[in-house]
Amino acid sequence: MAPAYKVSYFNITALGEPIRFLFSYGGIEFEDIRIEKEQWPQHKSKMPFGQMPVLEYNGKVAHQSLAICRYLAKQVKLVGKDDWEDLEIDAAVDTVNDLRQKLGGYHYEADEKIKKARGEILFKETLPYYIEKLNAQAEKNGGHLACNRLTWADIFLAGLLQYMNFMAQKDITENAPALKKVYEQVCELPNIKKWLQNRPKTEI
Amino acid sequence: MAPAYKVSYFNITALGEPIRFLFSYGGIEFEDIRIEKEQWPQHKSKMPFGQMPVLEYNGKVAHQSLAICRYLAKQVKLVGKDDWEDLEIDAAVDTVNDLRQKLGGYHYEADEKIKKARGEILFKETLPYYIEKLNAQAEKNGGHLACNRLTWADIFLAGLLQYMNFMAQKDITENAPALKKVYEQVCELPNIKKWLQNRPKTEI
Repeated sequence: MAPAYKVSYFNITALGEPIRFLFSYGGIEFEDIRIEKEQWPQHKSKMPFGQMPVLEYNGKVAHQSLAICRYLAKQVKLVGKDDWEDLEIDAAVDTVNDLRQKLGGYHYEADEKIKKARGEILFKETLPYYIEKLNAQAEKNGGHLACNRLTWADIFLAGLLQYMNFMAQKDITENAPALKKVYEQVCELPNIKKWLQNRPKTEI
Repeated sequence: MAPAYKVSYFNITALGEPIRFLFSYGGIEFEDIRIEKEQWPQHKSKMPFGQMPVLEYNGKVAHQSLAICRYLAKQVKLVGKDDWEDLEIDAAVDTVNDLRQKLGGYHYEADEKIKKARGEILFKETLPYYIEKLNAQAEKNGGHLACNRLTWADIFLAGLLQYMNFMAQKDITENAPALKKVYEQVCELPNIKKWLQNRPKTEI
């Protein structure tokens, strides 16, 4: 039988990978549809708001990667034990996502002069600021981003890290041991480890 | 007795307003702390990740406006009836927030030449694309953004609209009757109507 869930995304990690991590963590089978860049124009108009990742389930279609992750986190029980814990998890996820967007604003800038100016601010101010704060948060939470235990905020960070490092052209956790621990602990989870060994090899 | 909840934000609507709308909708008292721009430098370092809005409750502090809104939506029962409905609501909220960010990327650009180029794409492509899709979604959901009924996605849009219109320098719903209806229906809710009449008057 075909898996009940289908995920469509580009053949890269990036925004698709936290979703794939969550499926893998929960041992939930999913169809891992990867659309090559050259095929994208013929798919774009069929996607809600012309974007991926997209989740299909039971004939229904949903987009927005964070929303999809939150839905899956509920299925695999990586959410908070009360509303305030969920708020702390959501805030951590949104903060990691803010950092991802800031890295993207630098990496994808086509104008070299603007890119250089953005890089100045990013690498001297923004990135160190975020990393220091996130590292302190991970220290306070015993190697996790929230709630002193594994939640989907950790999975989200770990799934996105390769992409964020690619955009920064360095390991952004290099001077942030507690944050690095968040990542390493996720990668050591048996189901994630298996996914990392077996997933398609891609450049990003 | 002082209200249990405190919200700190600038003295504008923008990202603070969906939060204030949700409190008002639920009839929950909150301390509406407004920090003037000139005072901001002395407050910034005390805020998590140097940003507002910030919510305080029971000695705990949380940031990230969408996460705060989602938390409040649970308190005032404007969430989905199952996980998939919550996914649909979350996706709608993230899409409205994407549009808000795209408008911000134009409005806050300091370089006039870059701003003009961004405006070309924004007003000819991005904005019409989002508005058409969001309007179709509102039509399909009977004047709501999701689930065929009032959810916090509607409140989020309505709370942000004044700010988005300010950045676009026009009513972005002018050719989108179903989307306009989402906004108007929220504004007609008795508790929101009362808030709109009594809230501090601000330029943005």
